[in-house]
Amino acid sequence: MNDIVDSLRHAPLLCVIQALASGRTQSAALTRAFLEAIEHDGHLRAWVHVDAEGAMAAARAADARRAEGKARGWLDGVPLAIKDNIDVAGMPTLVGLPARREATPGKDAFIVARLRAAGAVFLGKTALDEATLGTVGRNVHHGDTHNPVWPERVSGGSSAGSAVAVAAGHAVAALGSDTLGSTRLPAGFCGVVGLKPTTGELSCRGLVPSLRRLDCPGLIVRSVGDLDPLLQVMAGYDPDDPRSRRRRVALAAPDWDPSSLRVGVPDGLAEIGTESDVLATFESAVARASSMLASASMARFDWNALEIPGTRRAALLLMEAELLATHGEDLAGASPALLSMLDFARRKSAVDAAVADRRLGAHQRRVRHLFERFDVLLLPLAPVLPPRCDQPEPGNLADFTALASMAGCPALALPLGAGAGLQLVGQPGSDLRLLELGTVLESVLESQHDN
Amino acid sequence: MNDIVDSLRHAPLLCVIQALASGRTQSAALTRAFLEAIEHDGHLRAWVHVDAEGAMAAARAADARRAEGKARGWLDGVPLAIKDNIDVAGMPTLVGLPARREATPGKDAFIVARLRAAGAVFLGKTALDEATLGTVGRNVHHGDTHNPVWPERVSGGSSAGSAVAVAAGHAVAALGSDTLGSTRLPAGFCGVVGLKPTTGELSCRGLVPSLRRLDCPGLIVRSVGDLDPLLQVMAGYDPDDPRSRRRRVALAAPDWDPSSLRVGVPDGLAEIGTESDVLATFESAVARASSMLASASMARFDWNALEIPGTRRAALLLMEAELLATHGEDLAGASPALLSMLDFARRKSAVDAAVADRRLGAHQRRVRHLFERFDVLLLPLAPVLPPRCDQPEPGNLADFTALASMAGCPALALPLGAGAGLQLVGQPGSDLRLLELGTVLESVLESQHDN
Repeated sequence: MNDIVDSLRHAPLLCVIQALASGRTQSAALTRAFLEAIEHDGHLRAWVHVDAEGAMAAARAADARRAEGKARGWLDGVPLAIKDNIDVAGMPTLVGLPARREATPGKDAFIVARLRAAGAVFLGKTALDEATLGTVGRNVHHGDTHNPVWPERVSGGSSAGSAVAVAAGHAVAALGSDTLGSTRLPAGFCGVVGLKPTTGELSCRGLVPSLRRLDCPGLIVRSVGDLDPLLQVMAGYDPDDPRSRRRRVALAAPDWDPSSLRVGVPDGLAEIGTESDVLATFESAVARASSMLASASMARFDWNALEIPGTRRAALLLMEAELLATHGEDLAGASPALLSMLDFARRKSAVDAAVADRRLGAHQRRVRHLFERFDVLLLPLAPVLPPRCDQPEPGNLADFTALASMAGCPALALPLGAGAGLQLVGQPGSDLRLLELGTVLESVLESQHDN
Repeated sequence: MNDIVDSLRHAPLLCVIQALASGRTQSAALTRAFLEAIEHDGHLRAWVHVDAEGAMAAARAADARRAEGKARGWLDGVPLAIKDNIDVAGMPTLVGLPARREATPGKDAFIVARLRAAGAVFLGKTALDEATLGTVGRNVHHGDTHNPVWPERVSGGSSAGSAVAVAAGHAVAALGSDTLGSTRLPAGFCGVVGLKPTTGELSCRGLVPSLRRLDCPGLIVRSVGDLDPLLQVMAGYDPDDPRSRRRRVALAAPDWDPSSLRVGVPDGLAEIGTESDVLATFESAVARASSMLASASMARFDWNALEIPGTRRAALLLMEAELLATHGEDLAGASPALLSMLDFARRKSAVDAAVADRRLGAHQRRVRHLFERFDVLLLPLAPVLPPRCDQPEPGNLADFTALASMAGCPALALPLGAGAGLQLVGQPGSDLRLLELGTVLESVLESQHDN
């Protein structure tokens, strides 16, 4: 492994793109380095399936195209990690369960097919909480995923392996999924960047359903600037995903005026048991952001008026009911813990589901009204720092991430160090403006946790 | 009642607008004529609440504004009928039930508020099937609504009174609601025009929920040209309806090229028991449309591949579950027939609901693929002519209307005489293009059933 390749293992996607395009490195060398790192770091349990042969073949094919001046674009030859609830043709999709009847799909998920057509290299599939129902990266079947940055803390979940792969230098970037926070939580816990785009912006075809109304592919990267080159390739109307919409305007339309940005910051977080460390880190980040965005107006809103915990429980009921519908007999080998959680939903009626669905509608209305006053919200990633590995899974980990999920909003999670994180939440459709803002804030926040 | 007013009682909205604007008639005279007609036609049971005093006061206020040259717009002083599941401030909303705890809303529904601000006069509330769960206009509490045009046939439902009010000359136009066909069916059965716009185009706030995913306000008018002046006033983004969307492009954007319109016509209708009279009338209308749209290409598609009946049953299960959630204790006085239908849903689980919801998603995908081949679909209104009053309610009446409802598409129903009708169905967002086409076809179809 040469020095360039070694440094690229931990570099942002934009650097890798530059290195491949300039010929400073080749995809085969990079892919081999990642595969070696994956093997070396087996104890992290980030991967459930590695396709070394397929990845090397794809990398060599990408290098051959580059050598002929026929690269497919900026992603040609870029090695990626895919969460194991997203179909990659020929690789098993197990969703954290021990077995599934139709484990190995013949077709790529829509977003995977887009990436493949652009020349991306798929290293394999990453570990997750059983059936996606978890927030800490624990799995009795393939073992718990470990946090490479803060080893005594959990990795976060359910996109545990995807976050660890990016944080540990196993892949340039990773796909996760985010139904209530499953991409942002592990990204922040492992000190990398996570994005849940506007719901419907990326097709969910080939993503095994958790809760269709809220399901959303997620992206995990090292730097905010890495998101745009991926989104450009992955986004697109898919008639086969009922929630995918024809984009009528460019994603980059000015959803707010940068010179008069209205920023909303929640009040009342201490009262609901947010850890004092989390609060201090959050307020310090808000202060930094405030000085950076000198022309912005910052105002507080009452977090508790949003009634998140009750709405999140309603979403969880719907998710559990859908997981029963999705997995059916495949749950035969599931853990007693998962089965007992799902049993709760099994006893619920269609009327209970209708009531829960309306709670989601009411939440969407409340968030819309919030965005009449604000262009972007700043939120902590979670009410607590990543739990220690020997602690039980807290019930409220996803309370701050669920706000965006349950309203279809884009949300960007930036790491603040030690597993803390800052979320930027915008209105549906404001994804690219959120990334612009994230790029600005990332620089000031990085200098913060370096201090 | 003078001659002008008498002739206006059965005139299209556009004529009424013209007569009011030119001073040929006044709103008070017109409103009084409608109120007299409503009283005279009490046997039709089209109305469950008439606000003669309020309507006359609103009409006189509109006349006063006109006299001062301060009319609020084209709808100022136009008398309308409102289905009794849509809130009008100060009038009871009973949804066809004998009593409701919070029967009299203090606030108008969003679309009613829009119309009120434009000066419209509300005559009262119209009859409907109990809790909207019906297609024929029968109601044990306020009595069955009667078809004024074909008295031995049912009026259609659930927007029974709204269709009868327009057909019998009780109002210039009426609001209905359309979850699976409830506006189009009674409109066609009573020989008038019905529109279900794109789902989300008109806010559902203040419309009592039947099945939120599919609920849609509907319009009943005498002529296609009447729809546009109403839609212009009623449409608009409502943050309080989670399904209402900010319109990113004008409703009138060219969704198809009129010079190369691709028209889809279903095959296989006879095999599923469509009455031969219905088929003959439909094919004759298609032939007329074909000669009118000489530059269009017409092709057949396989109706039965759409799996409508099974999907409609899934929607019905979800609707029944939501009706239980909506009405709760208000069902105490409901009919045994309604309670026994709802009892079916009460025994269904949250998992059953999740599976049913996915069937709706699969339908949406199938319809999207259909619209890759076609710009507009022509469909019969219903598989049978309006049932005779002494016949039981057929189970399949809404099969042809449900296609658009379950995919969020706009659908325009044009009368073909004797209770038959032709539906034009377009892609979501193509409402105004559908109306353009409807205006053209209306002329040729009218000459048909005059023959």
